Amino acid sequence: MSETHQVKGNRLDPWLDSYAARAHGLRASETRSLFAVAARPEVVSLAGGMPNLKDLPLDRLAEATARMIRKDGGRALQYGNGQGLPRLREQIPEIMALEGIAADPEDVIVTTGSQQAVDIITELFIDPGDVILAEAPTYVGSLSIFATYQADVQQVPIDADGIIPEALEERIIRLEKAGRPIKFYYCLPNFHNPAGVTLSEERRPQIIEICRRHHILIVEDNPYGLLGFDGQTYTALKTLAPEDVVYLGSFSKIFAPGYRVGWAVAPSAVREKMKLASEAAILCPSSVGQYSISMYLDGFDWKQQIEEFRGMYRGRRDAMVSALEEFMPMCTWNVPDGGFYVWVGLPEGLDAKDMLPRAVTNLVAYVSGTAFYPGGVAGQDHMRLSFCYPEPVEIREGVRRLSEVVSQDLELVSLFGPTRSLPSGGVVAPAPDQI
Amino acid sequence: MSETHQVKGNRLDPWLDSYAARAHGLRASETRSLFAVAARPEVVSLAGGMPNLKDLPLDRLAEATARMIRKDGGRALQYGNGQGLPRLREQIPEIMALEGIAADPEDVIVTTGSQQAVDIITELFIDPGDVILAEAPTYVGSLSIFATYQADVQQVPIDADGIIPEALEERIIRLEKAGRPIKFYYCLPNFHNPAGVTLSEERRPQIIEICRRHHILIVEDNPYGLLGFDGQTYTALKTLAPEDVVYLGSFSKIFAPGYRVGWAVAPSAVREKMKLASEAAILCPSSVGQYSISMYLDGFDWKQQIEEFRGMYRGRRDAMVSALEEFMPMCTWNVPDGGFYVWVGLPEGLDAKDMLPRAVTNLVAYVSGTAFYPGGVAGQDHMRLSFCYPEPVEIREGVRRLSEVVSQDLELVSLFGPTRSLPSGGVVAPAPDQI
Repeated sequence: MSETHQVKGNRLDPWLDSYAARAHGLRASETRSLFAVAARPEVVSLAGGMPNLKDLPLDRLAEATARMIRKDGGRALQYGNGQGLPRLREQIPEIMALEGIAADPEDVIVTTGSQQAVDIITELFIDPGDVILAEAPTYVGSLSIFATYQADVQQVPIDADGIIPEALEERIIRLEKAGRPIKFYYCLPNFHNPAGVTLSEERRPQIIEICRRHHILIVEDNPYGLLGFDGQTYTALKTLAPEDVVYLGSFSKIFAPGYRVGWAVAPSAVREKMKLASEAAILCPSSVGQYSISMYLDGFDWKQQIEEFRGMYRGRRDAMVSALEEFMPMCTWNVPDGGFYVWVGLPEGLDAKDMLPRAVTNLVAYVSGTAFYPGGVAGQDHMRLSFCYPEPVEIREGVRRLSEVVSQDLELVSLFGPTRSLPSGGVVAPAPDQI
Repeated sequence: MSETHQVKGNRLDPWLDSYAARAHGLRASETRSLFAVAARPEVVSLAGGMPNLKDLPLDRLAEATARMIRKDGGRALQYGNGQGLPRLREQIPEIMALEGIAADPEDVIVTTGSQQAVDIITELFIDPGDVILAEAPTYVGSLSIFATYQADVQQVPIDADGIIPEALEERIIRLEKAGRPIKFYYCLPNFHNPAGVTLSEERRPQIIEICRRHHILIVEDNPYGLLGFDGQTYTALKTLAPEDVVYLGSFSKIFAPGYRVGWAVAPSAVREKMKLASEAAILCPSSVGQYSISMYLDGFDWKQQIEEFRGMYRGRRDAMVSALEEFMPMCTWNVPDGGFYVWVGLPEGLDAKDMLPRAVTNLVAYVSGTAFYPGGVAGQDHMRLSFCYPEPVEIREGVRRLSEVVSQDLELVSLFGPTRSLPSGGVVAPAPDQI
């Protein structure tokens, strides 16, 4: 057969010349290879955002799932409705009601995790070069979607009370003056990933007011909202401005991520387009997954389970903060009141990305702050430490090991000065352990 | 709060001005509302491509699933590997081996149905305006993905032996002369949806040769390949040219679609980019779904189950062909030797899209041929009739009812002449019942 195709592409990838513009920057995180090492049992991983499922009642889940398949298997194994199982769309508003949000089942669309909802929203609104506003830092998984659609992500500073309203409006005005199309503001108001902070109640109406004034849609990503350690919840932006907000929820942190079931609640015209886009992409979400979750919500005390999750994660947060106090006085950190993450500031001159291989060698892993900025242009001075998955005793040992690495790097810096790596740009897919 | 946003968008959709170019044409199929009616039990639906699951052993599946959750629940309920569960990636090549395809587990990527694989491939290769070659007609679900990425779908004529090689090369040369970038050839070589034909063994190396000569990637979509009614299989394009073909497989038709699990096997450089794109879009495929399917492949006689499916679908094909012979002598059709579909040609002057409301009123549904051409620019003279889901006696009754409508329309045409509707253009999301 003809060999003329050898002149195109290259030896490693004959299709190199064929990719779309959006695919050229797509590459693995530079730290991905490290995570293969970090997955070894002797390494304490403070990197992953995996929920801790050890307290789920597997035996009862097994029995209930078997009953569900016997009873509903003919439908659960079949294609389903593109918008999601009607019964599950009725149940989802009961979950949102715990945070005081009123949602109509008609406006709920079930997605393959809330990740797919971010993907669809971005697909619907972003032409290459369009602006997405986000917090600095922001969720790595959404950044990789935004990069896929060639968005210009404009990150606005946050403090202990979340995004700074004045900074948000100033940025908007500057972008408007430059004629830039701002498509939406992507925010994580509760127990922020990675920063651990929560947008204050006082600022919420201010943010809404700013976005309304400039006609900017808000995408409110809220996977952790029910995991406040004192049972506290916050007024959702969706509650304050139902017609201006696309709300994203997920079963991954309040039940289990393995079903890949999340949801969005959107103004009806946007929801209708989301449904069509989702049908184009995947036809329908998993029927088995939806029937399983619906069964769980009907047959289990899921509110009590969330209560138990809260207590478990609070204990892990406490273990991490104690260990930081004991071993890492040279660093700064916040004390989150919910969620999975502590955002740790390194001493002047240290570089979280450079340090990571040494940390893994010392049997502890984290995510460099650079993962939470597009192209890794900032964040070298921070690490995200997750306390969700390891046991408290492992958390303490992990922080102790990390403190050794920080101390060694501090010594190196005092001898040779700072050695910061340069940002590399491009689209970085999140490593599985960075979620 | 400010009301300035009222000046943008419109009353029905305040965000109308914000959508990306790709979203503007996104709209529901005009026949979607009909399908709500067509779903009523008194209507015989010859429209949907839903597999018939009545013979799956639900009791045994229920028990095995319960055992799986007890044993592997901690992992099955958790996030997983972005490329797919390693065990399942080892099992998938065993399925492909039944068609004589050799696949390396390392080159398998598990997706949310093969629909997501088409989505990722299109995302990776298509800039707006790029050309995708396809058969005329082609699968409606892929057309809606191609439209989302603003591809120019160039459809090449087929005959009883599949795509016509000379027509394919002629089209390629014409497009090359016009300087148009051709990114891939999307094909359904076996038991075509909707046309029911199979690419002949003789033509397969010819197609490969043409695509190689012009350096065009082949996307081989093969959901029905194991459903040949005489147990026959055909040489995969992937077998003939492993480095030039992205192969797509699915559990939806050989087991059950409700898990939403499909797969792709791609040349390694392409596979690596597909994995990154999939992780960006959904993080990872459903762990529960993958563990369930892996358990099914390990614990059930899935080859025997496929054998039973073949027999069942053959019986339904026979029922449909007999009914067509009995009731529809005014139409033309092929006799498919596998898969789910018969492609029925209407008498001169009749319009399948126009006729559909009258058919539904007469309690029978089908998919108009227009669904299988981008923008509905052709296909008015054909209907896709599915024989997969209804019982043989229902198939016969459905064809009988349809023949009444065809006869009435023929009378109208003989009195008033043809009344063809105009194509409407834009991106049409497939109705759930058109899959």
